[in-house]
Amino acid sequence: MTERYRSNEPSTSELRHDWLCDRWVIIAPQRTDRPDDFAPSCDPMNFARGHQDKCPFCRGHENETPPPLAVYPANGQLGHQSGHAAPWLVRVVPNKFPAVCGLHTLKLAGVAGVTGGDWSEALAESEPDQCAQAAQPKPGIDLFRARHVIGAHEVIIESPLHLCSLTELDRETATTIFQAYRDRLRHWGQCPDIVYAVIFKNVGLDAGASLVHTHSQLIATNVLPPDIRRAIERMELYYETEHSCLFCRMLADELEENVRIVAQTDDFVAFCPFASRLPSLVTVVPREHHSSFEDMNDDCVEQLAWLVHRLLRAIEVCYPQAAYNYVLHTAPRGKRSSPAFHWRMEIFPRLTRVAGFEWGCDCFINPLPPELAARRLRQATGQ
Amino acid sequence: MTERYRSNEPSTSELRHDWLCDRWVIIAPQRTDRPDDFAPSCDPMNFARGHQDKCPFCRGHENETPPPLAVYPANGQLGHQSGHAAPWLVRVVPNKFPAVCGLHTLKLAGVAGVTGGDWSEALAESEPDQCAQAAQPKPGIDLFRARHVIGAHEVIIESPLHLCSLTELDRETATTIFQAYRDRLRHWGQCPDIVYAVIFKNVGLDAGASLVHTHSQLIATNVLPPDIRRAIERMELYYETEHSCLFCRMLADELEENVRIVAQTDDFVAFCPFASRLPSLVTVVPREHHSSFEDMNDDCVEQLAWLVHRLLRAIEVCYPQAAYNYVLHTAPRGKRSSPAFHWRMEIFPRLTRVAGFEWGCDCFINPLPPELAARRLRQATGQ
Repeated sequence: MTERYRSNEPSTSELRHDWLCDRWVIIAPQRTDRPDDFAPSCDPMNFARGHQDKCPFCRGHENETPPPLAVYPANGQLGHQSGHAAPWLVRVVPNKFPAVCGLHTLKLAGVAGVTGGDWSEALAESEPDQCAQAAQPKPGIDLFRARHVIGAHEVIIESPLHLCSLTELDRETATTIFQAYRDRLRHWGQCPDIVYAVIFKNVGLDAGASLVHTHSQLIATNVLPPDIRRAIERMELYYETEHSCLFCRMLADELEENVRIVAQTDDFVAFCPFASRLPSLVTVVPREHHSSFEDMNDDCVEQLAWLVHRLLRAIEVCYPQAAYNYVLHTAPRGKRSSPAFHWRMEIFPRLTRVAGFEWGCDCFINPLPPELAARRLRQATGQ
Repeated sequence: MTERYRSNEPSTSELRHDWLCDRWVIIAPQRTDRPDDFAPSCDPMNFARGHQDKCPFCRGHENETPPPLAVYPANGQLGHQSGHAAPWLVRVVPNKFPAVCGLHTLKLAGVAGVTGGDWSEALAESEPDQCAQAAQPKPGIDLFRARHVIGAHEVIIESPLHLCSLTELDRETATTIFQAYRDRLRHWGQCPDIVYAVIFKNVGLDAGASLVHTHSQLIATNVLPPDIRRAIERMELYYETEHSCLFCRMLADELEENVRIVAQTDDFVAFCPFASRLPSLVTVVPREHHSSFEDMNDDCVEQLAWLVHRLLRAIEVCYPQAAYNYVLHTAPRGKRSSPAFHWRMEIFPRLTRVAGFEWGCDCFINPLPPELAARRLRQATGQ
């Protein structure tokens, strides 16, 4: 892995190590230039739905994004057409303002250390710096360590129309979006440089969105984020101790308690977890043990897409106009058929703000007991 | 420590253990009733400065808060007058909607387990539950563990006038506020049930404030938050390895590099840390090694208060109307003269929002390199 000791401002993404918290931070200066529907200069009348005329995700503006990585036309056939006039349902494009540098760009630039690894392990195997602006590392523990983070940052554009929520889409489109997730995760799963990939969605200003046109994102990296590594270690510890997958057991306990269940289908269960950091956070897991989201069959993809659609609708009913996120955690490289890792989705409206105490102590105060949150959402889903 | 296995909704604060993340969460249902200047029903014209007529922190509304714990009159003499007409500069009152239950309330209610401890250690020594609604713990690892968290949650009201920022106050008042911090930390430092106390400030909607009238808060608990424990372990590891305090060394390195320094006084240095999770986060530390904020002399208190005033002013110049927080980390019980623990303040405007990737992976993307942030703030402080 490439590590550098530097004092200048980076011009592209770099990982920096916070020694106190033993955490890596991505410094991504290129992100500051991205368009922002929520910028203070926006017309407040347009605030809620953004600037349709200028939206780079709308039909007719296809040339404002980089060429697509995948295009899903309305007839359900996956293609790679980049023609602007071709009708499409869902498009996947590279993020124009990526949080992580493109794999190919860096390889072309001759940067070393693009193979996979763990952010912590990488510390132990630092190599001499390749960068011109680097200084010599100091003896002993180096408090100013940085390295390249590489991978991909993609946008899944969920409609050619200027819609703001997945709940405005029909079942076919929702299913196609989840098929796109599966396809992109499968694609990056086959790339030897990529160790980890995550799908996430930001809806609304408070959820970190900068454009309102309904979309999701994928970040794939050559490194495993420390928090994900720690979660995997906990799941493996549980498995070793209890001879059971943590989420299989949690699901059985939740179904038995039956006070935090929000919705169920043949193959999935949605519940508000017992120690939820955020009010109304919902976890969705497959009933059967599966470590990889991307191994799902078409029936399950459709079932999940429509369950998530229903859950988001329930959130919108309970908390009109609330911003929300979701995150899809599938197994990283090396854990794709692990008996300890159970894939899951987390959906969370942004009803409270992270205040000084939470930031300072990393201890969250949730004013809404998960039992009450689940009851409200259950009523709103009609279950 | 009291732990319970329960499925009912708690009516008062409880700590719940998230087994996956090995983290405790405070479920605090009583917090939902607190007043909110930022509620959607508020008149947007009053949004920025709240409802002066209804503000419980304003002069003349003293009977809308619980009786004060300390009152600092304009002449600088600390008193405990609760008379509404008595002129005051700063008042400390219990939070009417506390995140943690009052120590005395729980003791009177006969709840067991109020002595100090560590949240992780507490797991190993769980006691039979005292609560009527508790069920029997299951064999093996219990995924639904909860316990009482007790302590104090106080509000430091920083002015009798309806001002919204510490920067609107004069040097005498700013100094008095920091004296109040010192007094309250000393008070809780003498309480045998309290293990940890933190001072923090939320300014603006995006920083988690619910009232705009300038104020800070203190939370003191009988338990050490896991993140604080981990940070202390890292500082101790650094000390053992390098025979130096982590922050003493970081400060020396920052002064030598001289690219992330924001401001300096005789006794304090403010800088943007190398691996800052948030844009324009500023860390303030004493130049000399001190583990306890509450050991500061009067001169240092005044110097720090005015430095923080200047830093907040610089943030307001660079980012007008931005919400911000600060957090004061002093040594917990048992570490009050530790050679490894260096007290510090963190000040951070809330310029970005925590999005799905950050929530999902606990890995932060900061678009503003700390070197650039420091340069902007340095220029705004006139240094």
